[in-house]
Amino acid sequence: MKNILDKNQNKANEVRSIMRDKKVTMINLISSPGAGKTTLLERLCERLAGRFRLGVIEGDVTTDRDAQRLKKFEIPLVVINTGGGCHLDSYSIFRVLEYFDLENLDVLFVENIGNLVCPTAFDLGESFRLAIVSIPEGDDKPAKYPMLFRQARVVVLNKIDLMHHTNFSYESFLTDLRKINPGVPLFRVSCTNGTGLDEFTLWFEKQVHTF
Amino acid sequence: MKNILDKNQNKANEVRSIMRDKKVTMINLISSPGAGKTTLLERLCERLAGRFRLGVIEGDVTTDRDAQRLKKFEIPLVVINTGGGCHLDSYSIFRVLEYFDLENLDVLFVENIGNLVCPTAFDLGESFRLAIVSIPEGDDKPAKYPMLFRQARVVVLNKIDLMHHTNFSYESFLTDLRKINPGVPLFRVSCTNGTGLDEFTLWFEKQVHTF
Repeated sequence: MKNILDKNQNKANEVRSIMRDKKVTMINLISSPGAGKTTLLERLCERLAGRFRLGVIEGDVTTDRDAQRLKKFEIPLVVINTGGGCHLDSYSIFRVLEYFDLENLDVLFVENIGNLVCPTAFDLGESFRLAIVSIPEGDDKPAKYPMLFRQARVVVLNKIDLMHHTNFSYESFLTDLRKINPGVPLFRVSCTNGTGLDEFTLWFEKQVHTF
Repeated sequence: MKNILDKNQNKANEVRSIMRDKKVTMINLISSPGAGKTTLLERLCERLAGRFRLGVIEGDVTTDRDAQRLKKFEIPLVVINTGGGCHLDSYSIFRVLEYFDLENLDVLFVENIGNLVCPTAFDLGESFRLAIVSIPEGDDKPAKYPMLFRQARVVVLNKIDLMHHTNFSYESFLTDLRKINPGVPLFRVSCTNGTGLDEFTLWFEKQVHTF
């Protein structure tokens, strides 16, 4: 396992070096299945289109359903099917970079496999990690799956519109998160009704080209 | 990896043989993080208490929060912390069996790590797998994570009370599920308001001691 992680880290460093050279900001989106990675990408593509040149790598165990949802944006889009694998690794990213014209790209989103555990162990060479967690999953996720929340440069708390239909305690969530990652920016959003997305997009725009 | 899985399978066969010998029905609960494994266990413990002798193995990456929620039932309860690991394996189950009085147990629940991918590759020696998926995760989970749904002896669709607040298509969910596992029993429940739990409990009771 250590050997696998060491090799992954070396290749991730190579990817990161390419991205810096080409001035591409690469974001690794990690969450549980169904927390809203693809929906957040849809909202970001709508808001950033015309101002930034975007690309997406869609990681999926099987199917290209998420990619189908993004096709309407007519941006460079590559699907990686892991064939049962539980995470993306830096080798899989490296192999698909040739399909992108990196000279003409500002932002490369990587949607990882829906999984709060395994993807956290594999550096992809990203500029930063974006953790998404959603209200119906419960307020205990930072405490129970601390790895992701410790590494995240930003946390998006999605499906805020469902808050009043659940027993989610924002106070409890925040207390646990602050213990694990005291300074991490946190955005409360609803990708279905739009709440909080302007604030998040504003923050996001400031990150582009700063790595 | 093949070597790891082969060893796991051998130990799982051993566990299964012990369980058959002791007439214990062992259920492996698998779902995404926050789909409702622990809450379903709470509801089942309430409904089965006094009629069946229950035990629980709680798998968690870290913390004993789920176990704390089950303490009130005063049943044999063992926590396995994987320390970052993304699934339980048959060795971890085998090691904790000594803490249970198997002669005086009817049902042993195993709550796996919240993860739709890795736990599906590791037989624990269970009598059957119970797949839980929840409405807010979206109707595309069977298609996107087919491994679990193919293996499941029963599927519980939880948080049905949130159906009208989401764009979940039951028809689409069912179509995908039926392609993967045509005959699998499916129960639509809400572990918070109780919908469907009597029907599910009735089905569940019939499975005990039939393996």
